[in-house]
Amino acid sequence: MELKICVLPGDGIGPEVVREGIKVLQAISKKYGHKLILEEALIGGAALDKEADPLPEDTVFKCKDSQAVLLGAVGGPKWDNLPRNLRPESGLLGIRKKLDLFANIRPVKLLPALQQASVLRQDIVAKGIDLVVIRELTSGIYFGEPKGIFEEKGEKIGLNTMRYTEKEVQRVARLAFETALRRKKKVTSVDKANVLEVSQLWRDVVCEVAKEYPEVELEHLYVDNAAMQLVARPYSFDVIVTSNLFGDILSDEAGVITGSLGTLPSASLNEQKLGLYEPIHGSAPDIAGKDIANPIATILSVAMLLEYSFGLKEEANAIEQAVEKTLGFGYRTLDIFREGQKKVTCSQMGDFIAMQV
Amino acid sequence: MELKICVLPGDGIGPEVVREGIKVLQAISKKYGHKLILEEALIGGAALDKEADPLPEDTVFKCKDSQAVLLGAVGGPKWDNLPRNLRPESGLLGIRKKLDLFANIRPVKLLPALQQASVLRQDIVAKGIDLVVIRELTSGIYFGEPKGIFEEKGEKIGLNTMRYTEKEVQRVARLAFETALRRKKKVTSVDKANVLEVSQLWRDVVCEVAKEYPEVELEHLYVDNAAMQLVARPYSFDVIVTSNLFGDILSDEAGVITGSLGTLPSASLNEQKLGLYEPIHGSAPDIAGKDIANPIATILSVAMLLEYSFGLKEEANAIEQAVEKTLGFGYRTLDIFREGQKKVTCSQMGDFIAMQV
Ligand SMILES: CC(C)[C@H](C(=O)O)[C@@H](O)C(=O)O
Ligand SMILES: CC(C)[C@H](C(=O)O)[C@@H](O)C(=O)O
Repeated sequence: MELKICVLPGDGIGPEVVREGIKVLQAISKKYGHKLILEEALIGGAALDKEADPLPEDTVFKCKDSQAVLLGAVGGPKWDNLPRNLRPESGLLGIRKKLDLFANIRPVKLLPALQQASVLRQDIVAKGIDLVVIRELTSGIYFGEPKGIFEEKGEKIGLNTMRYTEKEVQRVARLAFETALRRKKKVTSVDKANVLEVSQLWRDVVCEVAKEYPEVELEHLYVDNAAMQLVARPYSFDVIVTSNLFGDILSDEAGVITGSLGTLPSASLNEQKLGLYEPIHGSAPDIAGKDIANPIATILSVAMLLEYSFGLKEEANAIEQAVEKTLGFGYRTLDIFREGQKKVTCSQMGDFIAMQV
Repeated sequence: MELKICVLPGDGIGPEVVREGIKVLQAISKKYGHKLILEEALIGGAALDKEADPLPEDTVFKCKDSQAVLLGAVGGPKWDNLPRNLRPESGLLGIRKKLDLFANIRPVKLLPALQQASVLRQDIVAKGIDLVVIRELTSGIYFGEPKGIFEEKGEKIGLNTMRYTEKEVQRVARLAFETALRRKKKVTSVDKANVLEVSQLWRDVVCEVAKEYPEVELEHLYVDNAAMQLVARPYSFDVIVTSNLFGDILSDEAGVITGSLGTLPSASLNEQKLGLYEPIHGSAPDIAGKDIANPIATILSVAMLLEYSFGLKEEANAIEQAVEKTLGFGYRTLDIFREGQKKVTCSQMGDFIAMQV
């Protein structure tokens, strides 16, 4: 099979973790006889430095011309004082919108070898954490108009608009139910319908879509309650579906309870299943270039890429198993290292996983 | 001193926990020679049942006519299918707005006796949790206009407006810095300034106010990061200040990590220091009327009431010590009970604490 992938290394540790992701991708392609066609492009600070634009036209073109996109991370203090539209984050928000990546999928799974790393009490962890957060990614308060900072009666006023249409909610809700069908058959929809009208619409539409999936159990939680339950009973969740802003908060919270953010992948999909795959961690400028970052999140993002954009489930499994085996042997990058284990660099970790796929 | 207090028992376990709060208030007033003047009024479902209005005019009048308000909890399934403006929550949002209670203050402290209850790993807990979340309570997306569900091109659209003025941010920021001055001298302001204009204004104003408090360290966190850090390093926070919606989410998250929501109090203040005090837990309809609820959150809310609305710091301390002593003796309501301790009812817990003030 021909795999045409656009690679966006980005900033900070982005390039080094992406390098390891590609290493594993090459190993798996060789083993299974796939032909890799890789195109590199600029995004974020890297693009700002070279083209004075966090999302050059050429990058959008190359992404659209591929079947999948692998992204490292964007941002860093170097670009923090630029005006908003010239900040690396604009590149990220821009590519999501231009590719219409309406669903961000973040599986949060506690790898058996890393159970100790969880910040939660071991008796809670022992019940297992295996959930997926599906976050709406191209609407809500991130993109709603009007927005801005205005002057009114001599005083400044800041405002943004949280806005959803029925169709926007429908498509992400449907994806959540479809995902639950292949998992534990439970969907938790998170909103703030006791206060916000936009959440009332969200809830109504989710209830409508639920009728198409009678086998799937549907639960509604208010976002404040969800933030509590994620910590108190993470084992009780299967698929969580929520809006852009709530998903931003809850998916990070869900990630951190595992205690190993450096291992968590994500996929952002559009209706044509063109996907953008990236680790959930940021660009970590403080450790960039030192070859100590954890490449596992990116490597597992490559596994998601193979499964979601190309349907290559077996290849994806092979990568996941190679990761578990490597961890099982006690190899750890600095972020997840504990006394008694074997410390390795970013590139060594990539080597070991590539060797085992 | 004369203490004129309006009491709003509300729904579910509200009346029974408030009863114990009053019991302790009476004991402390007797001991310190204060004269209590209590006025009861209706709110939430209780008010809906009797007056078809979740916030009768008479209640607003009685609150304004007092120096402090003690609230139990509102809401329950019985009223869940009423239209939004006739739901118990409207009573709560209404009283906040009518009394201009712009700042919600939630201290999150792990009582030494309850350290085991935390959902976090003991080595994280051992570093101590003692923080205060200050949430803006009368603006932001809770009250911003326009809002509603509209029809556009044959499709429904839901929308709400997140909006802050400079003055609204100033007053709550100032309160945060004042609070930090009396504590560990650190303020963490939480926003989403990398995406939202309203957060950019928030951040700018907080930075301005910070200049008046050079002794206080100021840190900014994006809300997604804050949701992570609260779980990963709760010990590093002192005062967290944030907007209405983010505060709703983060204060509940901060509360749950203690594992004992039934013990956490809150205060909501206006510029005249008229305050509304309430436990952070809800109305828990499933256990209402069984005399098994935990009254400690309400009792500690009474302590906040004495301190914040009347400046009676010694009386407040006496209540806190009575709570710690009672827990120290091993007495526990069901929610925090563990093998080997002494299980007591809601009213017994109130008795024991009242006996010791
Ligand atoms: C960097 C930022 C704009 C982004 C977001 O808020 O979506 C990030 O937090 C994420 O979750 O991918
Ligand atoms: C009941 C609800 C309207 C309320 C809120 O969102 O403010 C509650 O969650 C709270 O935090 O007091």
